[in-house]
This record gives sequence, C-alpha cells and structure tokens, in this order.
Amino acid sequence: MAITLDPWGHFTIEDYGKLIEQFGMMPIDPVLDLLPKNHHFFQRKIVFGHRDLDLWLKALKEGGRNAVLTGFMPSGHVHLGHLMVIEELKYFQEHGAQITVVIADAEAYAVRKVKRDQLFNYSEEYISYALAAGLDPYKTKFYFQTNQRSEYYRLIHMFSRKVTTAEMEAIYGSLEPAKIVASLTQAADILHIQLEEYGGFENVLVPVGADQDPHIRLTRDLADRFSEELKLKRPSSMYHKFARGLDGNKMSSSRPEYAVFLSDPIDIVKSKIMKALTGGRATADEQRELGGEPWKCTVFDLYSYYLAIDDRSLKDVYNDCISGRTLCGECKLKACNELVKLIKNLQELAKRYISAGLINKVIEYPSF
Amino acid sequence: MAITLDPWGHFTIEDYGKLIEQFGMMPIDPVLDLLPKNHHFFQRKIVFGHRDLDLWLKALKEGGRNAVLTGFMPSGHVHLGHLMVIEELKYFQEHGAQITVVIADAEAYAVRKVKRDQLFNYSEEYISYALAAGLDPYKTKFYFQTNQRSEYYRLIHMFSRKVTTAEMEAIYGSLEPAKIVASLTQAADILHIQLEEYGGFENVLVPVGADQDPHIRLTRDLADRFSEELKLKRPSSMYHKFARGLDGNKMSSSRPEYAVFLSDPIDIVKSKIMKALTGGRATADEQRELGGEPWKCTVFDLYSYYLAIDDRSLKDVYNDCISGRTLCGECKLKACNELVKLIKNLQELAKRYISAGLINKVIEYPSF
Repeated sequence: MAITLDPWGHFTIEDYGKLIEQFGMMPIDPVLDLLPKNHHFFQRKIVFGHRDLDLWLKALKEGGRNAVLTGFMPSGHVHLGHLMVIEELKYFQEHGAQITVVIADAEAYAVRKVKRDQLFNYSEEYISYALAAGLDPYKTKFYFQTNQRSEYYRLIHMFSRKVTTAEMEAIYGSLEPAKIVASLTQAADILHIQLEEYGGFENVLVPVGADQDPHIRLTRDLADRFSEELKLKRPSSMYHKFARGLDGNKMSSSRPEYAVFLSDPIDIVKSKIMKALTGGRATADEQRELGGEPWKCTVFDLYSYYLAIDDRSLKDVYNDCISGRTLCGECKLKACNELVKLIKNLQELAKRYISAGLINKVIEYPSF
Repeated sequence: MAITLDPWGHFTIEDYGKLIEQFGMMPIDPVLDLLPKNHHFFQRKIVFGHRDLDLWLKALKEGGRNAVLTGFMPSGHVHLGHLMVIEELKYFQEHGAQITVVIADAEAYAVRKVKRDQLFNYSEEYISYALAAGLDPYKTKFYFQTNQRSEYYRLIHMFSRKVTTAEMEAIYGSLEPAKIVASLTQAADILHIQLEEYGGFENVLVPVGADQDPHIRLTRDLADRFSEELKLKRPSSMYHKFARGLDGNKMSSSRPEYAVFLSDPIDIVKSKIMKALTGGRATADEQRELGGEPWKCTVFDLYSYYLAIDDRSLKDVYNDCISGRTLCGECKLKACNELVKLIKNLQELAKRYISAGLINKVIEYPSF
C-alpha cells in the first residue's frame, strides 16, 4: 500500500496537482532543499505549489532584502485557516524575512459590506491572535489599507492605467467598481513594499490560499508593466491547501458551525470537533476490520496541520487509524484535548495583548 | 431687433437652454440678485446654469464656511478657457470663499496617458498662470491627486462601495478601470474638503464647463449616499459656456491651431487671431450694408469674455459690428492688441512666479 509511505498531504494531492497543471504554478518538491529549515507544512505538502519561491529563497540565503506579505480580511472571526497563514509568517520571520500584514479594511468595507466600526473589532481580533501565535510585535508591520501614505495610493492610481476591462472581467466575472478598486488595492499592497519609502524590499513573497492565485497573476503582470517606470519586480508566491472545515469543505466563517474559531468558547470547540466528519466506517466492527480512511477525515487534518507536528506522532495517528486499532471517538477526544490546549493558550495570550494595549502600538487606526 | 437688447450671451443661449432643460440644471437669472457683486460672466450668461448656487450664496452671505473647488488637468498647455475658470475662482476668493485647486495628475496619467514627468511641467504652467491671473498664493490651496493624506484616499475606497457598474457605464460609456478610479477620485476631490481634516467646509461650490455635469450629478448622489455615515452634503455647482476656439468649436489643446495658449509666443497669438472665424459677410460692401453677425464671431467672444469687461464697451463693439461701421479686419486688430497686452502681462507675471520659486511653496510635489 503506497499510501502508508506518504501519509501527509496524500489525500487531496490529485486535485491540487490539477491546480498546478491548470494554472502553471510550480510544484513544491524541487524547492524543499532550499528551505532554511524543514517545516511540516512543506514536508506534508500543505504548501503544495509556488511561483518563483526558489528565487526568493536563494535571495534569502544570500542575505537579500526579503519580505513576506499577506493580508487579513476583517469581515469575520479568526479561524484555524488563518492560524495556518500566521504560522507561515512566523516561520519566515524566524529566518530573517521582514513580515508585513495588510488589514484589508477597504475591501472588507467596499466588497464584503462590513461596517467601519465592526471591521475594527475584527481587526483587533486578527492582530491579537497573530501576536498570540508568535509573530513578533516589534518586528511585524501591520497596516490598514485606508491608512497609508500617498506613495501607496499613487500606485493604485498608476496601476489603473495599465489594467484592461477585459482582464478585470476575466478575473472577477464582474466589473463592479468596488471590486476593481479592491483588486488594484491588493496589487498596491503586494508591490508597495518594493518602494524605497516602504523599505525597498526587492524580494517579496506572498503566501496565500490557492484561490488567490488570479490576484497574484494580475499583480505579477502589473510588476512587469511597471518594471521600467517604477523598477518593480515580480513578487513570488506560495500556495497552501485550504484548511478544511469540519464538514470537509473549505473552512469559512460563512459556515460557522463547521469552522473552529480561535475565539470559540471551549465547550463549543469540543462539541464542534465531536461532530466532525471523519473517515470512519459504518460500524465499529467494520472499522476494526477494514481500518479508517484518514485521507477523508477532517480530524486527521487537524493532526496533520496543527497537532501532530513531528512526523512520528502523525504516523502513529495514521497507522492507528488505517489498522483499525483506534476508533473515531477515541481519536476525536485526543484531538479535541490537544486543540483545546492550543486554543486556550492563544485565547489567554490574545486577551493579554489586548488588555496591555499592545494592539494600538503595533498598528495605527484610521481616523474614520 | 430683440438681439441688440441682450448682446451678451444671446448667440448660443438656445442651445444652453436645452442643456438646462435636459439635465435639470437651474437657469442663472434668479440667482443674480444673490451675488456679492456683479460680474460680467454672470450678467452675460457666460455662467448660464447651476445647481444649488443659491443655497451656497446664501450661506456665504451668512458667513458660512464656504469653499470653491475646481480642477486642472495637466495634460496640455493652459489656454483662454482655463483663464475663465481662474477668473471665477478669483471672484469668489475676493468675496471670502476658500479656494482649492486640484491638479488632476492621477487622471492625466491614467486616462490621458501623460507621462509623470511631463505632467509636472504642465502643472507648473497651470499654477503659475493661476497666480499670474490673480489668485492669492497665500490663500489658495493647490494639491496633486496623488499627494494627499489617507483621509482623502479613504473616501475613494468608501465611495467604491456605493457606485454601481450601471451608473459608471451610463456616465462614461466605458468600464475602463482607469476611468472608474478617476471618477471616484473626482468625487473625493469635490467632497473631501467637507471633512474636518481638510477644513470642514460645509458649503462647496464647483464651477465647471457644462460637459462636466455628469461628474457633478454622480458626486451629489454620493454625498446623499454618505449623508449619514460621513455627514456629507451635496456640493453646489455652476456651469459656464465653453470658451470657443477660433474655429467656433470648443477651445481645446487637441486643436492647438484654434486655441489661444497663454504661453503662445506673441506673434503666434497675433496670427491665430487674424485668422479667426468671425461673423463677417462675404464682401466688405455687403458687410457695410447688412452689418456683421457677432453672435457667430469668435472674436466677439474674446471681447465678451476677456476684453470688454464693462458693458458699455462691449455694446460699442456689438453696435459697431451689426451696423456695419467696423469691419472684421479693424475689429480683429483691436482685439488682438488688447489680448496681446493681457497675455504679455500674464506671461511676465507667470515667469516671475516661477523664477521666484513660488510654485514649490504653494504646492508639494509627489515623490514620483
């Protein structure tokens, strides 16, 4: 059985493989040797694809001005999917890259129609959990899209000259003014840190979910179109699999019953996990005989992404499952206990960062 | 002949009357009594229509926070049409309104495709002639669209939420990203000075050519849509007739041979005027008999707009023409001499403002 040799990341590799083919991303394997240190996200192919990550890693090794930039949309509560991104940022911060986190308040307001005061609450939550999960409050640059200097907005104006209606329609299937402005703003987010005024970071890496690739391609095209006038370089990108919700679909705050929010009360976390979709069989007897199917199991995802960081412990979970030694109830309970420990710790730290008034020190809020 | 009773503005009043009907502007007559002082632009119906100018004038009389805002597009040289706008600003500045002049560098770059360095040259020209024509360098606020504070750009982001694709298409007949961004930027230009951060001017008047009315209507609609959230009020507007080029069509830098640029060498000005379209007859004899038709004459426009400020002298020009007493050659020569005097004076003053380094003191240039 080939499956046992590669438990991590196997279960959906076929779909993501198609994604790579279809959009011309590069597979992650050839890049693994360039990483400054192993990380289970890469080894397990949770990060499964990239564009020019190899160039970015080489520049990092050579002591280049390397930055990582990603964005949070303050339109809902922080869930485990976001924790994955924060973990990626932390990894690169520990290896010397400058980290910038965009709070996409303009997009949340204009496209997602969140009220301005509401989005500040969500923003505080995002930032407090980012710090709680280990981002360095003194080294990480957080900013609101609507609270930047003019150089940043100038890029939006300039980019508008070299984007066509047809491109916009192809990317969004819509020409809503809010979406057009939001997409140009995203390009400014990714590219502005190359400007001298914002640190002059030549090598920029954007870690995102695979669904964000169209933005990345537009932004890379814009970098090409402004390579002379503004000396912009293409950003690199890397793509992780979606964190799956507890029903097996993409984790999203729009289906809160299947998402684990970092701010969920602990008893809610427990009851959500205990109801999660697994790879279990119809009956206990059948499962003892045939073994479970971890590649279908959202609880196995939790182990793979967050709970079983070292490969041995993940292998144990996997083998105990497919052999039929451990049934779903027991396995869920174990996952639940470990996840609760992790979340409780984050909640306490996040609360402490807020009550210490640190949020207002790491980000300047817009005046309205 | 009814025409002699109302020489100024009569010649195209029918067309502009249709404009008023079609777009729901208000005619200027009922507002004349509210003006702080007569001005030939109003008396001659060169300013022929408005929206809520009466409200603005009443607020001015009551000592309200009144501002006038207009924009210049740095995509070509300054011509007599722009001088008309500057004259309007000067008039309101002398009567206590705060004056703001937008240099529309974002739009010039993105929509008109002017290079960034080139548009700075044009901007300097606009500002120097605005000062030369009498705007107070210490009281007038000039700014570049790409060199503002975040509050201004935040408006662009916020406005994008409440503008539909259909509206954009109706206004521009196009959904080019550059035009969408430019139109939202124009709305921010007009509305931002109501914000506390920019002076909190409650009563804003925008003097523009009639062709700009669609922007005004969109901006007034946006003010309504943000009346609660941002406490925005509808701006007032007033509309002047186009300055006609020397061929009788709208004066424009795209047809330079028919436009009088303030920077034109004096001999060029002379030769342009001498070739201008007049209301003259086929032969001198016929003209002596029938008289000329000043309502067709672009040289009569020059008198009406710029050269014959007091009504008596304009009436003389008019009567000398329709009676056949003065023929076109003589009339042109007289206009030419007076225009040359006016332009020479402006050129000298503009040059002095530039060489004194005053431009850099009244406006801050963007960093790129």
